[in-house]
Amino acid sequence: MWTNMLPLHIDFSAKEVLIVGGGKIALRRLKTFLHAGANITVVSPEACEEIARLAEQNEICWKQEKVSVEHLHSPFLIVAATHDHDVNEWIGKNTRPNQLVNIASKMEKGNVLIPKIVKKGKLTLSISTNGASPTLAKELGEKLSSQFDDDFIKELDMLYEERQRRIRRR
Amino acid sequence: MWTNMLPLHIDFSAKEVLIVGGGKIALRRLKTFLHAGANITVVSPEACEEIARLAEQNEICWKQEKVSVEHLHSPFLIVAATHDHDVNEWIGKNTRPNQLVNIASKMEKGNVLIPKIVKKGKLTLSISTNGASPTLAKELGEKLSSQFDDDFIKELDMLYEERQRRIRRR
Repeated sequence: MWTNMLPLHIDFSAKEVLIVGGGKIALRRLKTFLHAGANITVVSPEACEEIARLAEQNEICWKQEKVSVEHLHSPFLIVAATHDHDVNEWIGKNTRPNQLVNIASKMEKGNVLIPKIVKKGKLTLSISTNGASPTLAKELGEKLSSQFDDDFIKELDMLYEERQRRIRRR
Repeated sequence: MWTNMLPLHIDFSAKEVLIVGGGKIALRRLKTFLHAGANITVVSPEACEEIARLAEQNEICWKQEKVSVEHLHSPFLIVAATHDHDVNEWIGKNTRPNQLVNIASKMEKGNVLIPKIVKKGKLTLSISTNGASPTLAKELGEKLSSQFDDDFIKELDMLYEERQRRIRRR
């Protein structure tokens, strides 16, 4: 099943995203979804400085407590990124069938893999080795990214603006 | 918001996918999700030959009727691909906040964009111009795909097998 992962590009603006855990991986995931416009709640008794700071600035909500089933009911997407593999797997088992779930420590227990992402203007690329080698995925991302220069991106952005004008006229 | 689309790689095995419409675009979307292992229901009074054949072979379920709100309750992902823009937009308005929705005729009305997808062994790439030019996205997909030869893919598959062995030993 795992090799059948399907890449979809999803609009996360105003979507509820729950990050369980307060460490480095939690922070990395958090940033990905924060930049995508999601409403983020972190659940973790402790958290790294940057998460605490983001919470203080009201960029995210931080619930300074242990995760419980109540936290898992409503989010659109849940990231399980605690240091405890058992807790992460417990989260995976207690989500709803239609929820998006990323289990950082054992991605096979969830249904979402966060790929290497390249964004340049209106161009979005994702690269995944389906877990074979995240390091290689990162390298490929950099290699592919370097193939698109500023002129190309500018041209693409113009095509986008043109299309937007056509849509508004409909 | 639309330029903030986040690519995620999602496991669709046994996920419920609803395709509304029975034409060419519906068929193309259907195949993408069928190959990803989803349980597919098509809702459409009429459908093209291939959809009818797939239903006859029990590869998919075809409900030969007009779409209604009841169809929209449970699917993990909904594709609105009828020939009627108003029906497609009506579908977009009647889905739940946490559902994945692709509106083929006006993707801005949904929350999912289906990118150009490249799959070679364990390598998965997605390419999107965020609607600027689907033709260009397709061309880029072919260009990027050609950069990965069989040796590279074989090596990647070996890395994957190695990782699987490590996981099983955990």
